[in-house]
Amino acid sequence: MTTYSREDIDNFPQRYRTIFINSLSGFRTACLIGTADKNGQSNLAIFNSLTHIGAHPPLVGLIIRPHSAERHTLENILDTNVFTINHVQESFLKKAHQTSARYPREISEFEATGLNEYYADAFYAPFVAESTVRIAAKHLQTIDITANNTILLIAEIIWVELPHPIVRNDGYIDLGAAGTIVCNGLDSYHTTQPIGRLTYAKPDTEPKYL
Amino acid sequence: MTTYSREDIDNFPQRYRTIFINSLSGFRTACLIGTADKNGQSNLAIFNSLTHIGAHPPLVGLIIRPHSAERHTLENILDTNVFTINHVQESFLKKAHQTSARYPREISEFEATGLNEYYADAFYAPFVAESTVRIAAKHLQTIDITANNTILLIAEIIWVELPHPIVRNDGYIDLGAAGTIVCNGLDSYHTTQPIGRLTYAKPDTEPKYL
Repeated sequence: MTTYSREDIDNFPQRYRTIFINSLSGFRTACLIGTADKNGQSNLAIFNSLTHIGAHPPLVGLIIRPHSAERHTLENILDTNVFTINHVQESFLKKAHQTSARYPREISEFEATGLNEYYADAFYAPFVAESTVRIAAKHLQTIDITANNTILLIAEIIWVELPHPIVRNDGYIDLGAAGTIVCNGLDSYHTTQPIGRLTYAKPDTEPKYL
Repeated sequence: MTTYSREDIDNFPQRYRTIFINSLSGFRTACLIGTADKNGQSNLAIFNSLTHIGAHPPLVGLIIRPHSAERHTLENILDTNVFTINHVQESFLKKAHQTSARYPREISEFEATGLNEYYADAFYAPFVAESTVRIAAKHLQTIDITANNTILLIAEIIWVELPHPIVRNDGYIDLGAAGTIVCNGLDSYHTTQPIGRLTYAKPDTEPKYL
Protein backbone atom coordinates (compact mmCIF):
# COMPACT_ATOMS: atom_id res chain seq x y z
CA MET A 1 0.00 0.00 0.00
CA THR A 2 1.17 3.51 -0.85
CA THR A 3 0.00 6.59 1.02
CA TYR A 4 -0.77 9.74 -0.95
CA SER A 5 -0.92 12.70 1.42
CA ARG A 6 -3.02 15.77 0.77
CA GLU A 7 0.21 17.60 -0.03
CA ASP A 8 1.11 14.93 -2.61
CA ILE A 9 -2.34 15.28 -4.18
CA ASP A 10 -2.27 19.09 -4.23
CA ASN A 11 1.18 18.96 -5.86
CA PHE A 12 0.12 16.62 -8.68
CA PRO A 13 0.08 18.31 -12.12
CA GLN A 14 -3.48 19.57 -12.69
CA ARG A 15 -4.53 16.98 -15.28
CA TYR A 16 -3.01 14.10 -13.27
CA ARG A 17 -4.86 15.26 -10.14
CA THR A 18 -8.17 15.56 -11.99
CA ILE A 19 -7.85 12.01 -13.35
CA PHE A 20 -6.65 10.60 -9.99
CA ILE A 21 -9.43 12.10 -7.87
CA ASN A 22 -12.14 11.46 -10.46
CA SER A 23 -11.29 7.77 -10.59
CA LEU A 24 -10.81 7.42 -6.81
CA SER A 25 -14.45 7.91 -5.86
CA GLY A 26 -15.42 4.87 -7.82
CA PHE A 27 -17.59 3.43 -10.55
CA ARG A 28 -20.66 5.38 -11.68
CA THR A 29 -23.39 4.74 -14.20
CA ALA A 30 -22.85 6.31 -17.62
CA CYS A 31 -25.95 8.29 -18.67
CA LEU A 32 -26.85 10.60 -21.50
CA ILE A 33 -28.84 13.65 -20.39
CA GLY A 34 -31.19 14.91 -23.12
CA THR A 35 -32.51 18.48 -23.08
CA ALA A 36 -33.88 21.09 -25.47
CA ASP A 37 -33.52 24.87 -25.28
CA LYS A 38 -36.45 27.30 -25.43
CA ASN A 39 -36.36 27.19 -29.24
CA GLY A 40 -36.48 23.40 -29.35
CA GLN A 41 -32.77 22.97 -30.19
CA SER A 42 -31.77 19.60 -28.71
CA ASN A 43 -28.68 18.91 -26.60
CA LEU A 44 -27.15 15.68 -25.35
CA ALA A 45 -24.35 15.23 -22.81
CA ILE A 46 -22.78 12.25 -21.06
CA PHE A 47 -22.85 12.40 -17.26
CA ASN A 48 -21.56 10.02 -14.64
CA SER A 49 -22.94 11.85 -11.61
CA LEU A 50 -26.47 10.40 -11.50
CA THR A 51 -27.34 9.75 -7.85
CA HIS A 52 -30.25 8.05 -6.12
CA ILE A 53 -31.92 10.52 -3.75
CA GLY A 54 -35.09 8.74 -2.66
CA ALA A 55 -37.84 6.33 -3.69
CA HIS A 56 -41.01 8.01 -2.41
CA PRO A 57 -41.29 10.39 -4.13
CA PRO A 58 -38.91 8.95 -6.75
CA LEU A 59 -36.01 11.41 -6.85
CA VAL A 60 -32.61 11.51 -8.51
CA GLY A 61 -29.75 13.99 -8.33
CA LEU A 62 -27.12 15.21 -10.79
CA ILE A 63 -23.91 17.01 -9.88
CA ILE A 64 -23.23 19.70 -12.51
CA ARG A 65 -20.15 21.84 -13.03
CA PRO A 66 -21.56 25.14 -14.32
CA HIS A 67 -18.41 26.16 -16.20
CA SER A 68 -17.83 22.93 -18.11
CA ALA A 69 -19.30 21.35 -21.23
CA GLU A 70 -22.26 20.52 -18.96
CA ARG A 71 -23.32 24.20 -19.00
CA HIS A 72 -25.75 23.91 -21.95
CA THR A 73 -27.48 21.03 -20.18
CA LEU A 74 -27.88 23.06 -17.00
CA GLU A 75 -29.21 26.14 -18.82
CA ASN A 76 -31.75 24.08 -20.74
CA ILE A 77 -33.00 22.36 -17.59
CA LEU A 78 -33.36 25.66 -15.74
CA ASP A 79 -35.19 27.16 -18.76
CA THR A 80 -37.55 24.26 -19.55
CA ASN A 81 -37.71 22.31 -16.27
CA VAL A 82 -37.40 18.87 -17.89
CA PHE A 83 -34.74 16.44 -19.09
CA THR A 84 -34.29 12.80 -19.98
CA ILE A 85 -31.87 10.26 -18.50
CA ASN A 86 -30.76 7.54 -20.91
CA HIS A 87 -28.49 4.74 -19.68
CA VAL A 88 -25.51 4.04 -21.95
CA GLN A 89 -24.99 0.56 -23.43
CA GLU A 90 -21.91 -0.74 -25.19
CA SER A 91 -23.48 -0.64 -28.68
CA PHE A 92 -23.38 3.19 -28.73
CA LEU A 93 -20.64 3.90 -26.20
CA LYS A 94 -18.28 5.78 -28.56
CA LYS A 95 -21.11 8.06 -29.70
CA ALA A 96 -22.12 8.63 -26.08
CA HIS A 97 -18.54 9.53 -25.10
CA GLN A 98 -18.29 11.87 -28.11
CA THR A 99 -21.09 14.06 -26.66
CA SER A 100 -18.51 15.32 -24.12
CA ALA A 101 -16.74 17.30 -26.89
CA ARG A 102 -17.32 21.05 -26.64
CA TYR A 103 -19.72 21.61 -29.52
CA PRO A 104 -21.06 25.14 -30.05
CA ARG A 105 -24.59 25.77 -28.82
CA GLU A 106 -26.16 25.69 -32.29
CA ILE A 107 -24.98 22.12 -32.95
CA SER A 108 -27.04 19.27 -31.52
CA GLU A 109 -24.95 16.41 -30.18
CA PHE A 110 -27.60 14.07 -31.62
CA GLU A 111 -26.70 15.22 -35.14
CA ALA A 112 -22.99 15.48 -34.43
CA THR A 113 -22.72 11.93 -33.09
CA GLY A 114 -25.44 10.17 -35.08
CA LEU A 115 -27.48 9.17 -32.04
CA ASN A 116 -31.22 9.21 -32.73
CA GLU A 117 -33.49 11.55 -30.81
CA TYR A 118 -37.17 10.94 -30.32
CA TYR A 119 -39.93 12.72 -28.48
CA ALA A 120 -42.60 10.91 -26.48
CA ASP A 121 -45.99 12.01 -25.15
CA ALA A 122 -45.39 15.73 -25.78
CA PHE A 123 -42.50 15.65 -23.29
CA TYR A 124 -40.30 18.65 -24.18
CA ALA A 125 -36.90 16.96 -23.81
CA PRO A 126 -35.56 14.41 -26.31
CA PHE A 127 -34.87 10.76 -25.50
CA VAL A 128 -32.08 8.64 -27.00
CA ALA A 129 -33.73 5.97 -29.17
CA GLU A 130 -30.73 3.60 -28.83
CA SER A 131 -30.92 3.45 -25.02
CA THR A 132 -32.80 0.58 -23.37
CA VAL A 133 -33.35 2.32 -20.01
CA ARG A 134 -34.91 5.80 -20.30
CA ILE A 135 -36.28 8.13 -17.65
CA ALA A 136 -38.34 11.31 -18.02
CA ALA A 137 -37.40 13.74 -15.23
CA LYS A 138 -38.66 17.07 -13.96
CA HIS A 139 -36.48 19.62 -12.19
CA LEU A 140 -37.47 20.15 -8.56
CA GLN A 141 -34.66 21.88 -6.68
CA THR A 142 -31.24 23.44 -7.38
CA ILE A 143 -28.73 23.24 -4.55
CA ASP A 144 -25.47 25.19 -4.51
CA ILE A 145 -22.45 23.30 -3.24
CA THR A 146 -20.53 26.35 -2.12
CA ALA A 147 -17.39 24.35 -1.29
CA ASN A 148 -16.45 24.32 -4.99
CA ASN A 149 -19.26 26.13 -6.82
CA THR A 150 -20.89 23.05 -8.27
CA ILE A 151 -24.61 22.39 -8.32
CA LEU A 152 -26.71 19.47 -7.13
CA LEU A 153 -29.82 19.35 -9.23
CA ILE A 154 -32.72 17.39 -7.71
CA ALA A 155 -35.38 16.00 -10.06
CA GLU A 156 -38.43 13.80 -9.79
CA ILE A 157 -38.98 10.81 -12.02
CA ILE A 158 -42.07 11.28 -14.23
CA TRP A 159 -41.98 8.00 -16.10
CA VAL A 160 -39.62 5.14 -16.96
CA GLU A 161 -39.22 3.06 -20.11
CA LEU A 162 -37.33 -0.23 -20.03
CA PRO A 163 -37.64 -3.86 -21.21
CA HIS A 164 -40.09 -5.59 -18.87
CA PRO A 165 -38.05 -8.86 -18.64
CA ILE A 166 -35.22 -7.13 -16.73
CA VAL A 167 -37.59 -6.31 -13.82
CA ARG A 168 -37.50 -9.13 -11.24
CA ASN A 169 -40.44 -10.26 -9.08
CA ASP A 170 -39.55 -7.98 -6.17
CA GLY A 171 -39.07 -4.86 -8.32
CA TYR A 172 -35.30 -5.18 -8.80
CA ILE A 173 -34.22 -3.83 -12.20
CA ASP A 174 -31.34 -5.95 -13.48
CA LEU A 175 -29.21 -3.28 -15.15
CA GLY A 176 -26.51 -5.82 -15.94
CA ALA A 177 -29.06 -7.63 -18.14
CA ALA A 178 -29.91 -4.25 -19.71
CA GLY A 179 -26.23 -3.79 -20.56
CA THR A 180 -25.90 -0.50 -18.66
CA ILE A 181 -22.25 0.59 -18.67
CA VAL A 182 -20.28 1.93 -15.72
CA CYS A 183 -17.56 4.54 -15.86
CA ASN A 184 -14.49 4.85 -13.64
CA GLY A 185 -13.05 8.34 -13.79
CA LEU A 186 -13.36 10.43 -16.92
CA ASP A 187 -12.88 7.92 -19.72
CA SER A 188 -12.73 4.29 -18.56
CA TYR A 189 -15.82 2.21 -19.34
CA HIS A 190 -16.76 -1.20 -17.99
CA THR A 191 -19.44 -3.85 -18.17
CA THR A 192 -20.55 -5.62 -14.98
CA GLN A 193 -20.63 -9.27 -13.91
CA PRO A 194 -23.08 -10.31 -11.18
CA ILE A 195 -21.72 -11.76 -7.95
CA GLY A 196 -25.19 -12.13 -6.48
CA ARG A 197 -27.89 -10.52 -4.38
CA LEU A 198 -27.59 -10.79 -0.61
CA THR A 199 -30.49 -11.23 1.80
CA TYR A 200 -31.65 -8.29 3.94
CA ALA A 201 -29.18 -7.98 6.82
CA LYS A 202 -30.36 -8.63 10.40
CA PRO A 203 -28.18 -8.56 13.51
CA ASP A 204 -28.38 -12.26 14.35
CA THR A 205 -28.30 -13.96 10.94
CA GLU A 206 -25.64 -14.28 8.25
CA PRO A 207 -26.47 -12.87 4.83
CA LYS A 208 -26.88 -15.46 2.06
CA TYR A 209 -26.99 -15.16 -1.72
CA LEU A 210 -30.59 -15.19 -3.00
CA MET B 1 -40.13 -1.60 -23.98
CA THR B 2 -42.62 -1.13 -21.17
CA THR B 3 -43.60 2.27 -19.83
CA TYR B 4 -44.04 2.74 -16.09
CA SER B 5 -45.95 5.94 -15.43
CA ARG B 6 -45.54 7.97 -12.27
CA GLU B 7 -48.94 6.67 -11.20
CA ASP B 8 -47.76 3.07 -11.71
CA ILE B 9 -44.67 3.81 -9.61
CA ASP B 10 -46.61 5.54 -6.83
CA ASN B 11 -49.02 2.59 -6.71
CA PHE B 12 -46.30 -0.05 -6.34
CA PRO B 13 -46.25 -1.72 -2.90
CA GLN B 14 -43.77 0.23 -0.76
CA ARG B 15 -40.98 -2.37 -0.71
CA TYR B 16 -41.33 -3.04 -4.47
CA ARG B 17 -41.12 0.69 -5.19
CA THR B 18 -38.06 1.13 -2.98
CA ILE B 19 -36.24 -1.71 -4.76
CA PHE B 20 -37.35 -0.53 -8.24
CA ILE B 21 -36.29 3.11 -7.83
CA ASN B 22 -33.09 2.25 -5.97
CA SER B 23 -31.94 -0.02 -8.78
CA LEU B 24 -33.10 2.32 -11.58
CA SER B 25 -30.53 5.04 -10.93
CA GLY B 26 -27.72 2.65 -11.64
CA PHE B 27 -24.55 1.06 -10.41
CA ARG B 28 -22.67 2.66 -7.54
CA THR B 29 -19.46 1.88 -5.72
CA ALA B 30 -19.84 -0.13 -2.53
CA CYS B 31 -17.99 1.57 0.35
CA LEU B 32 -17.67 1.07 4.07
CA ILE B 33 -17.79 4.30 6.06
CA GLY B 34 -15.80 4.08 9.30
CA THR B 35 -16.46 6.45 12.20
CA ALA B 36 -16.02 6.65 15.97
CA ASP B 37 -18.23 8.40 18.50
CA LYS B 38 -16.93 10.90 21.09
CA ASN B 39 -16.04 8.02 23.43
CA GLY B 40 -14.04 6.20 20.77
CA GLN B 41 -16.72 3.55 20.09
CA SER B 42 -16.27 2.53 16.44
CA ASN B 43 -19.02 2.21 13.83
CA LEU B 44 -19.00 0.83 10.31
CA ALA B 45 -21.74 1.07 7.68
CA ILE B 46 -22.00 0.16 4.00
CA PHE B 47 -22.95 3.02 1.68
CA ASN B 48 -23.49 3.17 -2.05
CA SER B 49 -23.98 6.92 -2.32
CA LEU B 50 -20.34 8.06 -2.58
CA THR B 51 -20.18 10.83 -5.19
CA HIS B 52 -17.34 12.71 -6.83
CA ILE B 53 -17.74 16.44 -6.15
CA GLY B 54 -14.48 17.94 -7.37
CA ALA B 55 -10.74 17.39 -7.81
CA HIS B 56 -9.22 20.69 -6.62
CA PRO B 57 -9.76 20.74 -3.72
CA PRO B 58 -10.39 16.96 -3.66
CA LEU B 59 -14.01 16.63 -2.51
CA VAL B 60 -16.49 13.78 -2.20
CA GLY B 61 -20.15 13.69 -1.21
CA LEU B 62 -22.34 11.18 0.63
CA ILE B 63 -26.15 11.11 0.59
CA ILE B 64 -27.40 10.16 4.06
CA ARG B 65 -30.91 9.28 5.22
CA PRO B 66 -31.03 10.61 8.81
CA HIS B 67 -33.70 8.16 9.99
CA SER B 68 -32.12 4.96 8.70
CA ALA B 69 -29.36 2.65 9.92
CA GLU B 70 -27.05 5.36 8.58
CA ARG B 71 -27.96 7.61 11.52
CA HIS B 72 -25.06 6.54 13.80
CA THR B 73 -22.63 7.30 10.97
CA LEU B 74 -24.08 10.79 10.51
CA GLU B 75 -24.05 11.58 14.23
CA ASN B 76 -20.43 10.45 14.58
CA ILE B 77 -19.31 12.54 11.60
CA LEU B 78 -21.08 15.64 12.93
CA ASP B 79 -19.55 15.06 16.41
CA THR B 80 -15.97 14.27 15.37
CA ASN B 81 -15.67 15.80 11.87
CA VAL B 82 -13.84 12.84 10.32
CA PHE B 83 -14.58 9.50 8.68
CA THR B 84 -12.92 6.88 6.50
CA ILE B 85 -14.05 5.56 3.12
CA ASN B 86 -13.05 1.97 2.41
CA HIS B 87 -13.86 0.40 -0.96
CA VAL B 88 -15.45 -3.04 -0.75
CA GLN B 89 -13.80 -6.04 -2.45
CA GLU B 90 -15.32 -9.47 -3.02
CA SER B 91 -13.20 -11.19 -0.33
CA PHE B 92 -15.15 -9.45 2.47
CA LEU B 93 -18.41 -8.62 0.69
CA LYS B 94 -20.74 -10.60 2.99
CA LYS B 95 -19.23 -8.95 6.07
CA ALA B 96 -19.53 -5.56 4.43
CA HIS B 97 -23.22 -6.16 3.57
CA GLN B 98 -23.86 -7.37 7.14
CA THR B 99 -22.94 -3.90 8.49
CA SER B 100 -26.33 -2.72 7.16
CA ALA B 101 -28.11 -4.66 9.95
CA ARG B 102 -29.53 -2.40 12.67
CA TYR B 103 -27.10 -3.06 15.50
CA PRO B 104 -27.60 -1.11 18.74
CA ARG B 105 -25.26 1.84 19.26
CA GLU B 106 -23.07 0.06 21.82
CA ILE B 107 -22.13 -2.70 19.35
CA SER B 108 -19.35 -2.01 16.85
CA GLU B 109 -20.01 -3.44 13.40
CA PHE B 110 -16.28 -4.28 13.28
CA GLU B 111 -16.75 -6.73 16.15
CA ALA B 112 -20.15 -7.94 14.97
CA THR B 113 -18.95 -8.79 11.45
CA GLY B 114 -15.33 -9.74 12.12
CA LEU B 115 -13.88 -6.98 9.93
CA ASN B 116 -10.59 -5.61 11.32
CA GLU B 117 -10.33 -1.98 12.35
CA TYR B 118 -7.10 -0.09 12.48
CA TYR B 119 -6.11 3.47 13.27
CA ALA B 120 -3.47 5.37 11.31
CA ASP B 121 -1.51 8.52 12.10
CA ALA B 122 -3.70 9.56 15.07
CA PHE B 123 -6.68 9.91 12.69
CA TYR B 124 -9.77 9.60 14.91
CA ALA B 125 -11.88 7.37 12.61
CA PRO B 126 -11.12 3.67 12.05
CA PHE B 127 -10.09 2.18 8.69
CA VAL B 128 -11.01 -1.30 7.43
CA ALA B 129 -7.78 -3.33 7.28
CA GLU B 130 -9.20 -5.68 4.61
CA SER B 131 -9.90 -2.89 2.11
CA THR B 132 -7.31 -2.14 -0.58
CA VAL B 133 -8.54 1.42 -1.34
CA ARG B 134 -8.87 3.63 1.76
CA ILE B 135 -9.53 7.34 2.09
CA ALA B 136 -9.28 9.61 5.14
CA ALA B 137 -11.96 12.32 4.89
CA LYS B 138 -12.86 15.46 6.81
CA HIS B 139 -16.37 16.88 6.98
CA LEU B 140 -16.68 20.27 5.28
CA GLN B 141 -20.35 21.07 4.67
CA THR B 142 -23.80 19.62 5.42
CA ILE B 143 -26.49 20.35 2.85
CA ASP B 144 -30.19 19.69 3.47
CA ILE B 145 -32.08 18.22 0.54
CA THR B 146 -35.47 19.53 1.57
CA ALA B 147 -37.32 17.63 -1.18
CA ASN B 148 -37.17 14.47 0.94
CA ASN B 149 -35.27 15.38 4.13
CA THR B 150 -32.04 13.68 3.21
CA ILE B 151 -28.58 15.17 3.66
CA LEU B 152 -25.69 15.68 1.28
CA LEU B 153 -22.52 15.63 3.28
CA ILE B 154 -19.49 17.22 1.59
CA ALA B 155 -16.01 16.16 2.72
CA GLU B 156 -12.46 16.82 1.69
CA ILE B 157 -9.97 14.07 1.09
CA ILE B 158 -7.10 14.19 3.61
CA TRP B 159 -5.08 11.22 2.38
CA VAL B 160 -5.44 8.08 0.29
CA GLU B 161 -3.97 4.60 0.70
CA LEU B 162 -3.96 2.15 -2.21
CA PRO B 163 -1.64 -0.27 -4.02
CA HIS B 164 0.73 1.80 -6.18
CA PRO B 165 0.57 -0.60 -9.20
CA ILE B 166 -3.11 0.23 -9.85
CA VAL B 167 -2.24 3.89 -10.55
CA ARG B 168 -1.54 4.38 -14.27
CA ASN B 169 0.94 6.87 -15.76
CA ASP B 170 -1.64 9.62 -16.19
CA GLY B 171 -3.05 9.32 -12.66
CA TYR B 172 -5.93 6.96 -13.50
CA ILE B 173 -6.67 4.60 -10.61
CA ASP B 174 -7.72 1.22 -12.03
CA LEU B 175 -10.40 0.24 -9.52
CA GLY B 176 -11.21 -2.89 -11.53
CA ALA B 177 -7.66 -4.08 -10.83
CA ALA B 178 -8.22 -3.20 -7.15
CA GLY B 179 -11.32 -5.42 -7.16
CA THR B 180 -13.69 -2.64 -6.06
CA ILE B 181 -17.27 -3.92 -6.15
CA VAL B 182 -20.30 -2.09 -7.54
CA CYS B 183 -23.83 -2.31 -6.21
CA ASN B 184 -27.08 -2.05 -8.16
CA GLY B 185 -29.96 -1.21 -5.88
CA LEU B 186 -29.97 -2.35 -2.27
CA ASP B 187 -28.45 -5.82 -2.41
CA SER B 188 -27.07 -6.78 -5.85
CA TYR B 189 -23.28 -6.80 -6.10
CA HIS B 190 -21.14 -6.98 -9.24
CA THR B 191 -17.55 -7.05 -10.40
CA THR B 192 -16.52 -5.03 -13.45
CA GLN B 193 -14.91 -5.95 -16.78
CA PRO B 194 -13.01 -3.25 -18.68
CA ILE B 195 -14.23 -2.25 -22.15
CA GLY B 196 -11.50 0.35 -22.50
CA ARG B 197 -10.53 3.98 -22.03
CA LEU B 198 -11.58 6.44 -24.71
CA THR B 199 -9.54 9.41 -25.87
CA TYR B 200 -10.54 12.95 -24.82
CA ALA B 201 -13.46 13.97 -27.04
CA LYS B 202 -13.01 16.86 -29.50
CA PRO B 203 -15.63 18.07 -31.99
CA ASP B 204 -13.82 17.03 -35.17
CA THR B 205 -12.25 13.72 -34.24
CA GLU B 206 -13.64 10.27 -33.41
CA PRO B 207 -12.83 8.86 -29.98
CA LYS B 208 -10.51 5.82 -29.99
CA TYR B 209 -9.65 3.27 -27.33
CA LEU B 210 -6.32 4.07 -25.65
